[in-house]
Amino acid sequence: MDGHQTPAAQAAMTLRYGAGAEPKPGPWNDTLALLLSHRSVRGFRPDALPDGTTETLVAAAQSAATSSNLQTWSVVEVTDPAVRKELAAIAGNQKHVEICPLFLVFLADVSRNARLAEAEGKDLVGLPYLESFLVASIDAALAAQNAVVAAESLGLSTVYIGALRNDVTRVAELLGLPKGVAPVFGLCVGHPAAGREGEVKPRLPQEAVLHRGTYDAADAGHRAAYDPRMAEFSRRNEMAADNWTQRVIARLGTLTALRGRDKLKEALIGLGFPLR
Amino acid sequence: MDGHQTPAAQAAMTLRYGAGAEPKPGPWNDTLALLLSHRSVRGFRPDALPDGTTETLVAAAQSAATSSNLQTWSVVEVTDPAVRKELAAIAGNQKHVEICPLFLVFLADVSRNARLAEAEGKDLVGLPYLESFLVASIDAALAAQNAVVAAESLGLSTVYIGALRNDVTRVAELLGLPKGVAPVFGLCVGHPAAGREGEVKPRLPQEAVLHRGTYDAADAGHRAAYDPRMAEFSRRNEMAADNWTQRVIARLGTLTALRGRDKLKEALIGLGFPLR
Repeated sequence: MDGHQTPAAQAAMTLRYGAGAEPKPGPWNDTLALLLSHRSVRGFRPDALPDGTTETLVAAAQSAATSSNLQTWSVVEVTDPAVRKELAAIAGNQKHVEICPLFLVFLADVSRNARLAEAEGKDLVGLPYLESFLVASIDAALAAQNAVVAAESLGLSTVYIGALRNDVTRVAELLGLPKGVAPVFGLCVGHPAAGREGEVKPRLPQEAVLHRGTYDAADAGHRAAYDPRMAEFSRRNEMAADNWTQRVIARLGTLTALRGRDKLKEALIGLGFPLR
Repeated sequence: MDGHQTPAAQAAMTLRYGAGAEPKPGPWNDTLALLLSHRSVRGFRPDALPDGTTETLVAAAQSAATSSNLQTWSVVEVTDPAVRKELAAIAGNQKHVEICPLFLVFLADVSRNARLAEAEGKDLVGLPYLESFLVASIDAALAAQNAVVAAESLGLSTVYIGALRNDVTRVAELLGLPKGVAPVFGLCVGHPAAGREGEVKPRLPQEAVLHRGTYDAADAGHRAAYDPRMAEFSRRNEMAADNWTQRVIARLGTLTALRGRDKLKEALIGLGFPLR
């Protein structure tokens, strides 16, 4: 169904932005409804997924754009319960990493290109630069987001596990990664457990994120409007009532909260990304 | 329509992987068909898009996951023809940057969080780390990919413009970016010009990208299978017949081919990302 905004569309915008903060109405269809209704889920049923689900999600992932068709990403499906358990611990004891029926680790991967060059007797002088690590991480993110959309189109839920970056060195050992491959994040996929379906999380007003022509830094008013919305969401969902301002400061205000990711640069260099 | 693989699904897999290289069949629906049919387009009709299109794409983008809800990304819609012209030049004279009806620049943006902390009299000690730049870049990529899927669901086409990173300092000047904001890539959106709709580009065999349990580096056979497919695609689409191996070596084998991106690290430090 394609068309202009329907009552359902308006409802989706209200859930995402809060009443009174909906952006200007535009075109609408079922795919937009799917995208707008995204929520991260952290409690899964262990039930196995239909045969071929992993392959279908990866086909969607490989269909995303990749910089210069370099395809500098890979993904590992992790099934071994002992490895899952250790990955969950690295991620700050996120139990859903153990329980979800499908757990994927997305990788920045320049090793495939390096192997190809070695076989041809060439030197890829562009590889050691920060740019190549960034391209590989962006490739992985674009691919993963397509996998997320694909999963949600099949009625499945997901959550990204960025906390694998707490210890990329150990994750790399567990997955047997060669030089030039680094974990970027994990992804849990499965059916939500009863009562764990979650709620659409409100985002900043669109005016705070979308700039016209040049960047507009005058966003204090947008934050003032958003803080109580997030506090209300937290009260309903997390038995706390932190607003966004408090959460950002809690997340970024101490080195402890980085949980080891202040050492990420050295760890990536150790995994074969000189980040020149 | 949800169900198991149909002839249309098999055809979509054949276009993406080549005859004989299709992955194991799995579930299928219209969203998967949309994702699998992605192609980047580099020739656009200048026709204006329906009212509200930008807002709808950004609503889809904001609905993507964002690390710890930090929302460390922003987007600028660029309409000024003089700015478009200079951005096209920075990107190696990509004329479609000037012509497409909607041009977005996605930004890694920790400045919003920094402004919030300053207003509260706090110091975000986590911000200067490489981790924060990486989170912001991944946030931008997840958001942008949702915008791409949203655009394609509306019958529009897109192409990412990573070549804005050829000179992030100048792009930041043109867009008036404050400290702590850096361009990650651009995105052209519009209807393809006649004859510029493009063709689905084949990707590496799934076995080269999807690893089971641990990483399998034995991929020479997959490359051997893929090289002639890419050569055939190039012959049909680009009046050349380079295979993938040749393209990767051309793209990464010289510093010249990085077109200034070997200086990206210094440029990002200059834009307020110390990358500690």
